[in-house]
Amino acid sequence: MPVGTLGTVKSIPQPVLKDSIGAQIILGNTYHLYLRPGNKIISKAGGLHHFINWDLPILTDSGGFQVFSLSDIRDLHEQGVTFQSHIDGSRHLFTPENVVETQRILGSDIMMLLDECAPNPSSYDYAKKAMELTHRWARRGRKAFNETQPRYSHKQQQFGIVQGNTYKELRIASSKAIADIGFEGHAIGGLSVGEPAPVMYEMTDICTDYLPGDKPRYLMGVGTPANIIQSVALGVDMFDCVMPTRNGRNGMIFTRNGTINLRNAKWKDCFESADEGFPSELCQNHSLAYIHHLIRSKELLGLYLASAHNLTFYLWLAAEIRKQLENQTFDDWYKNMIEKVDRKL
Amino acid sequence: MPVGTLGTVKSIPQPVLKDSIGAQIILGNTYHLYLRPGNKIISKAGGLHHFINWDLPILTDSGGFQVFSLSDIRDLHEQGVTFQSHIDGSRHLFTPENVVETQRILGSDIMMLLDECAPNPSSYDYAKKAMELTHRWARRGRKAFNETQPRYSHKQQQFGIVQGNTYKELRIASSKAIADIGFEGHAIGGLSVGEPAPVMYEMTDICTDYLPGDKPRYLMGVGTPANIIQSVALGVDMFDCVMPTRNGRNGMIFTRNGTINLRNAKWKDCFESADEGFPSELCQNHSLAYIHHLIRSKELLGLYLASAHNLTFYLWLAAEIRKQLENQTFDDWYKNMIEKVDRKL
Repeated sequence: MPVGTLGTVKSIPQPVLKDSIGAQIILGNTYHLYLRPGNKIISKAGGLHHFINWDLPILTDSGGFQVFSLSDIRDLHEQGVTFQSHIDGSRHLFTPENVVETQRILGSDIMMLLDECAPNPSSYDYAKKAMELTHRWARRGRKAFNETQPRYSHKQQQFGIVQGNTYKELRIASSKAIADIGFEGHAIGGLSVGEPAPVMYEMTDICTDYLPGDKPRYLMGVGTPANIIQSVALGVDMFDCVMPTRNGRNGMIFTRNGTINLRNAKWKDCFESADEGFPSELCQNHSLAYIHHLIRSKELLGLYLASAHNLTFYLWLAAEIRKQLENQTFDDWYKNMIEKVDRKL
Repeated sequence: MPVGTLGTVKSIPQPVLKDSIGAQIILGNTYHLYLRPGNKIISKAGGLHHFINWDLPILTDSGGFQVFSLSDIRDLHEQGVTFQSHIDGSRHLFTPENVVETQRILGSDIMMLLDECAPNPSSYDYAKKAMELTHRWARRGRKAFNETQPRYSHKQQQFGIVQGNTYKELRIASSKAIADIGFEGHAIGGLSVGEPAPVMYEMTDICTDYLPGDKPRYLMGVGTPANIIQSVALGVDMFDCVMPTRNGRNGMIFTRNGTINLRNAKWKDCFESADEGFPSELCQNHSLAYIHHLIRSKELLGLYLASAHNLTFYLWLAAEIRKQLENQTFDDWYKNMIEKVDRKL
């Protein structure tokens, strides 16, 4: 799922995202959209789909993660979390109930629960407390979801979030507790926040063992192409990550043969495509020398071409994974593919 | 002519520029392209068209204007102008001859002469000296053009540039002197550099009286939609301006009913199109509320949508002007149109 924090996948026009890149669903951030443009505007627009003119599914997170990562001053308590806006310092309260209400206004197809994502590293005691609060908030959030109705003409789903930091025992307990509540899908939260990749995989593996296989399993905020392939092998179905767009804006692109740092002087007179035959606008229309020039000159077109290329690559990778799974060739394919996409060119 | 300073019309992919916006020719800046990526890279690419993947005409300026406006340290002498790069401080020399050579390497369809653009205001004596130097350089540049060949498979043309600041007598002398040399087209330089609009029109009017009507007359760096309409009335055929893209990036758009400052809070809950029925991506797909949100949130998509809209508007205006001229209705149409496009909404 491409990430569209503020109602736009950074630099990509919606028709390009849908028709050329082939995104089937995008993400919106409740924290950001709640602060700007705010619920009143979104409500008047008739929901986020109308506001941004996007007629395919949207998943919105709860904003919890951003409260903890972006807001300097916050006060966590049983009722919810009070925080100051990173934009103007104004004070706000997020509760398990009001983030459901905000996501009713957004009209996202999939809404996420308010959770507490414990930092990495956290002590066992802190991680356990954060997990238990997350579970109590999950039950309150589900109740609010069950007692309210969608505002617009389409159905909404709600996903629970597993926490438990890097503690095996807590991850098992959290997966069971969240699975018991009866959400339409389940997310694995609190990973990819600085822990080593083997730990992330170990925790993911435990969670997918306990989360039901007949409902989508979503690993939040992950990750590199290698992370995604490996996590599919562990049973994950859904991913979101800012990496394709953020790395693209920083001049780093992903290809079928490995990653390319476009700023590197060695590309300045390389008139080849970054990945010959790859169906992105960048690879079809332009040379490495040209995109190197654009990125070094800080030209907006460079940010767009690299971002669009990376999104095309991520969606190509997801389609490739689905094909390998359908053909039952995934097990033979994936280790070699991880090696290829992880190379630095 | 949309301005593509560094081999890209800022934020606009080439296929959009050609197919959706309908640009028939774009501008490149010799000063910028000479410094980055440099003649060696452009030459290896087989010219600017190949480097940027643009198969329609390109006009390149001589770089003179940028030497005078961007370079802090410069030394003007009979041979040419020595200057320091605004990027890395390296020293370079532009002469009437070597800017022809650089534009042979660029392979632009229309190349411009090296001239001295006197600042506004300038004394009569200074303006006269700058004009006379411009004339001597024009003859040297034409000689260099006549004695060299295109590097690639297409023909190149060379346009002379009239100077003379805001002095009637000098403008007449310069128009005659430049017209005598035998260029394929003629540009009016040294205007839109801070003088009042009536002065710009007066000088333009004088130049078009003396520049032959059977060759294109090009008013450099002009201007607003109203400036363009008025200057067509005075006999100008060609224009270039950064305004559609630069103003777009600053959140200002041009419409058939006047200009809109997208940052203005009054648009935050206006769910109408900026110009209903206008064939730009912005007007077709999005509301004022959405583009207001994007611009206020400093989102890249906002810069793209506003820039693409403004270019679409400028090219629509040019097509409209051509239609009115062909139908011989221009004289009845243009004053009312100037009033409309000049309004602030």
